[in-house]
Amino acid sequence: MIEVAVFGAGRIGTIHAGNLVKAPGVRLTCVADPDAGAAQALASRLGAQVATAPQIFLDDKIQAVLICSSTDTHADLILAAAAAGKQIFCEKPVDLEVARARQCAAAVEQAGVACMIGFQRRFDPTFAALKARLGAGEIGVPEMLVVTSRDPGAPPVPYIRSSGGIFRDMLIHDFDIFRWILEDEAETVHASASCLTDPAIAEAGDADSTAVTIRTRKGRLCQINTSRRAAYGYDQRFEVLGSRGMLQAGNHAPTEVVASTAACVSRDLPEHFFLERYRAAYAAEMAHFFAVLAGTETLRTTLDDGLKALELAAAATTSWREGRVVRMP
Amino acid sequence: MIEVAVFGAGRIGTIHAGNLVKAPGVRLTCVADPDAGAAQALASRLGAQVATAPQIFLDDKIQAVLICSSTDTHADLILAAAAAGKQIFCEKPVDLEVARARQCAAAVEQAGVACMIGFQRRFDPTFAALKARLGAGEIGVPEMLVVTSRDPGAPPVPYIRSSGGIFRDMLIHDFDIFRWILEDEAETVHASASCLTDPAIAEAGDADSTAVTIRTRKGRLCQINTSRRAAYGYDQRFEVLGSRGMLQAGNHAPTEVVASTAACVSRDLPEHFFLERYRAAYAAEMAHFFAVLAGTETLRTTLDDGLKALELAAAATTSWREGRVVRMP
Amino acid sequence: MIEVAVFGAGRIGTIHAGNLVKAPGVRLTCVADPDAGAAQALASRLGAQVATAPQIFLDDKIQAVLICSSTDTHADLILAAAAAGKQIFCEKPVDLEVARARQCAAAVEQAGVACMIGFQRRFDPTFAALKARLGAGEIGVPEMLVVTSRDPGAPPVPYIRSSGGIFRDMLIHDFDIFRWILEDEAETVHASASCLTDPAIAEAGDADSTAVTIRTRKGRLCQINTSRRAAYGYDQRFEVLGSRGMLQAGNHAPTEVVASTAACVSRDLPEHFFLERYRAAYAAEMAHFFAVLAGTETLRTTLDDGLKALELAAAATTSWREGRVVRMP
Amino acid sequence: MIEVAVFGAGRIGTIHAGNLVKAPGVRLTCVADPDAGAAQALASRLGAQVATAPQIFLDDKIQAVLICSSTDTHADLILAAAAAGKQIFCEKPVDLEVARARQCAAAVEQAGVACMIGFQRRFDPTFAALKARLGAGEIGVPEMLVVTSRDPGAPPVPYIRSSGGIFRDMLIHDFDIFRWILEDEAETVHASASCLTDPAIAEAGDADSTAVTIRTRKGRLCQINTSRRAAYGYDQRFEVLGSRGMLQAGNHAPTEVVASTAACVSRDLPEHFFLERYRAAYAAEMAHFFAVLAGTETLRTTLDDGLKALELAAAATTSWREGRVVRMP
Repeated sequence: MIEVAVFGAGRIGTIHAGNLVKAPGVRLTCVADPDAGAAQALASRLGAQVATAPQIFLDDKIQAVLICSSTDTHADLILAAAAAGKQIFCEKPVDLEVARARQCAAAVEQAGVACMIGFQRRFDPTFAALKARLGAGEIGVPEMLVVTSRDPGAPPVPYIRSSGGIFRDMLIHDFDIFRWILEDEAETVHASASCLTDPAIAEAGDADSTAVTIRTRKGRLCQINTSRRAAYGYDQRFEVLGSRGMLQAGNHAPTEVVASTAACVSRDLPEHFFLERYRAAYAAEMAHFFAVLAGTETLRTTLDDGLKALELAAAATTSWREGRVVRMP
Repeated sequence: MIEVAVFGAGRIGTIHAGNLVKAPGVRLTCVADPDAGAAQALASRLGAQVATAPQIFLDDKIQAVLICSSTDTHADLILAAAAAGKQIFCEKPVDLEVARARQCAAAVEQAGVACMIGFQRRFDPTFAALKARLGAGEIGVPEMLVVTSRDPGAPPVPYIRSSGGIFRDMLIHDFDIFRWILEDEAETVHASASCLTDPAIAEAGDADSTAVTIRTRKGRLCQINTSRRAAYGYDQRFEVLGSRGMLQAGNHAPTEVVASTAACVSRDLPEHFFLERYRAAYAAEMAHFFAVLAGTETLRTTLDDGLKALELAAAATTSWREGRVVRMP
Repeated sequence: MIEVAVFGAGRIGTIHAGNLVKAPGVRLTCVADPDAGAAQALASRLGAQVATAPQIFLDDKIQAVLICSSTDTHADLILAAAAAGKQIFCEKPVDLEVARARQCAAAVEQAGVACMIGFQRRFDPTFAALKARLGAGEIGVPEMLVVTSRDPGAPPVPYIRSSGGIFRDMLIHDFDIFRWILEDEAETVHASASCLTDPAIAEAGDADSTAVTIRTRKGRLCQINTSRRAAYGYDQRFEVLGSRGMLQAGNHAPTEVVASTAACVSRDLPEHFFLERYRAAYAAEMAHFFAVLAGTETLRTTLDDGLKALELAAAATTSWREGRVVRMP
Repeated sequence: MIEVAVFGAGRIGTIHAGNLVKAPGVRLTCVADPDAGAAQALASRLGAQVATAPQIFLDDKIQAVLICSSTDTHADLILAAAAAGKQIFCEKPVDLEVARARQCAAAVEQAGVACMIGFQRRFDPTFAALKARLGAGEIGVPEMLVVTSRDPGAPPVPYIRSSGGIFRDMLIHDFDIFRWILEDEAETVHASASCLTDPAIAEAGDADSTAVTIRTRKGRLCQINTSRRAAYGYDQRFEVLGSRGMLQAGNHAPTEVVASTAACVSRDLPEHFFLERYRAAYAAEMAHFFAVLAGTETLRTTLDDGLKALELAAAATTSWREGRVVRMP
């Protein structure tokens, strides 16, 4: 039996905790959260105890920790968990600063523990199937990737203000998709951005609409377009052009009803937001983490993936702010 | 806490048992099956006991039974369960004989217990959404219903031989869809059928391909086409033409990947068979049954629905065998 | 240069005349119509003369006639044209009476002239492609055919009253599709029908909604569902289930625009009615007729096809009126 | 009757000539081409005369010229036609050099003649419908445009060598789409490109795959992705995200057949290349040109549009070659 502690009893911590208790041979032992009520509620519901971070790191029975707390706590918790020899699952991003993320990477490597970063999109049934078919050579060698990533609406401005900016907060997932799909590293990054949906976002120093182009070392091209607002809901698509064809990953809809009226032929909107769209992905990613700990699978999203995505986010931010193309080291 | 016993530890019994243990306030207490090993395996996995039918019916703590055993046991178990005052969930069909199903209906009514029949399609997200939108008047008054219902492949011939024939075994679901969607009763039934996929099915006295037309009391028309074999998998669609438009329910696909190659633009096949397609429906139907017992919902598929579908199956069988239109009483 | 006369300067005559003048080596010489103004207008626009039927039949330079006049004149004109040795293109139906159509068939055969019946759907790009792929064995042996055929709205009641009834007037095309696609003849026909869209149609002795089932000599099954009214426009689809898969022919839309709003994801309605949907088919059918006359193609829709479709329409009418299955001779 | 001369009897000249003879009140009088045989063939087929450029410009009866000759002749012919007071239709691009195109613009303005540039995509039924719906406010204010533009295969390398490069030769259409859809001008342009399909293209100094980002004066974002090779055929799509939704323009397919087999559910490839996809657009654009000359419509694609698209192509080329963001004047 693997005993697990969860840091963070908020929305994503609750999802992961709910999924981990379904993994065979896994037990949720402790929940930690600055909000004592939230911690207690989650712990009670799943038969766990409330604990503090020090208690968790000192408890030798606890083998693994899920870091689902606020972004500014990720690095400290990774460092402490690595020092305590715990296996680590950490939500994205590792940190807002590249240097700090590198420090985490070093610590994790030295400790010899697993550190999985929560890029759940890799576990989405549609995205994973596309990746597998691409890998099987169905469309030959990949040449271009176009990623569309739009939220149904922007988060509150205070959140945006401390988010590290749209490239670190939102496109971090798209940068990971880029690396995962093209299996290549960026040579140059160009980012353009605007604030089109809410002037308060501009006042907070951020943008809500972005257009990024990455050219890889092998000369492959990737374009990412992102918006904080799509009136029709969560839009998560990408397409890969290869030497022998194209693979496209589309949105998921709640139902397959088609209505034909005097006005039009219509279908459902996409699933509303990430909790709906990535429900299966969250479950699959947690199952994967424990399969890795059980030795039956090897880690598919590492801290290094988190670091590389963060480097791209930092480069895109620079490109946007300075109006120039950024060359990756 | 509602204690429940399950009759039948086969494929469908295992699905229902797995879903019932997720319902709040519900506990699986006993499993009964002539195959002791199967019963023990299911019971062990879900923390229940193996028991015999008499033990179950005599156990006052057991409030509800799920009848998931072979069709020829349904009526006996319904009668015994009703006599014992148990709440009943029974897989379709109630019985192969209309008279026997009527006897069950009378017993259930007299006992005042709930008896839900497992027409899980009513709980499919796509079908249920279509029904709700139809009920909301989106396409006006329904006029025509076209049901397509095809299995990926035929069951073994011995199964077919004791199945009561394709109309009772396979179309029973489609007859229920007809009544549920059009909210009207059949006035005339015409059925044509052929054996086109395997001569052994004809030798067993059955058909594998059918074409049924029902005209309702209100003059609405319904056509059902069915095959035991679709090379592309499980095909479960229907469409309703109304005075102001059409609603279509399509198949579900495992992923939303689209591939474009030099050959064609292609998508996934539909989900392979009923276990995949109706996974969500089975879960929703079980949740509904216990919500009914908890008093928060009212029964949506009754024994009377099972009886009416069976009457249509019997009429269709007669129509096919005698080559004539059958008028319903 | 083939000189051609057109009988009927109405909607369909105008379409055919417009297409024939594009055929190489073909000239429109004469137009005949009881409505002298209509005849003159069409003739003037296309550089032809107005003429009477006798003038046309006596004019040896005219090699071919297009019969696009009202249904009750078809048989007389076919007989006269055959007697005069003209090549014939005639709009469907040959006649409302089977006996009369047979008389035409005999006359045409004796005269040794071509007589093409205007089943333009066979020339629709989508339908023709499906037929070719079926013939190439893409889905193995055909087993079931489901035809959906709905008009955007009913014609005026006076038209309906003299139309021969919905089976002769509207389903004649669907009966031809059935024979063309399954390449088999009907053994039994069952038709059910209702009047659901306008009571005046019932008062005129007709139905507006039909459900037909045909079982072929080889045991194949065909279902046809038809309505005089679809709020969303002209609905012309069919699908064939074969031993190795399914081919579906869908509607054509004017554009490929998809709109996603807060309400839904929507597409264009189908092309509004037959003039839009079958524009390409009408052109292709006329080109085919003159290619036959030029000896480069062989006739793809014969008077016998018209006769067979009419026999099915008559059988369906009987089935509906007498509430029984009709066995074809 | 408007008399028209056509320069260029190649592929596109033949298409335009074929369409112009269908316009009411328009007559093709002369055809000019350095290839005398080609000129004669086209002239004969359409009842016109072969002529030289001087003859055409001196012939006062000729009111309009279509310039469909090779790109390097466009500017000279525009200047001569303007000087002769002819109405002008000219294929894209105006010229490969911005300065020369500006000279043409000045000459045309001074002469007071119409000069339509052949951006036929604006006349494509799908694109035009999207534009109209966008203009009607269906998705609010446009924010982002994503253009996908891929050819089935690259032209011969000698053609590429004299083409002015992929941005001038191929993306010129996409730059026009950008301006037409967003109704805004570029503030910055960034282009990245690679040679991924054929090393001979790189040796010719060109790229075959591009990724362009444009930020407009209003802060709107546009991304264009282009390839000289798509194994699945001609891929011409774009989508606009607006404040209240999204409009997408998809590819056209030859038929609406859907095949479901044991392998997949498949549809037709897109129409193969521009001659098929833009057949309707070419016809509509020619009808528009003569409607403008007849005074019933106002010019929808002007020489200024051609100039602006060329400026963008030049900026993109610079951006690519110098690896920097280019700011438009």
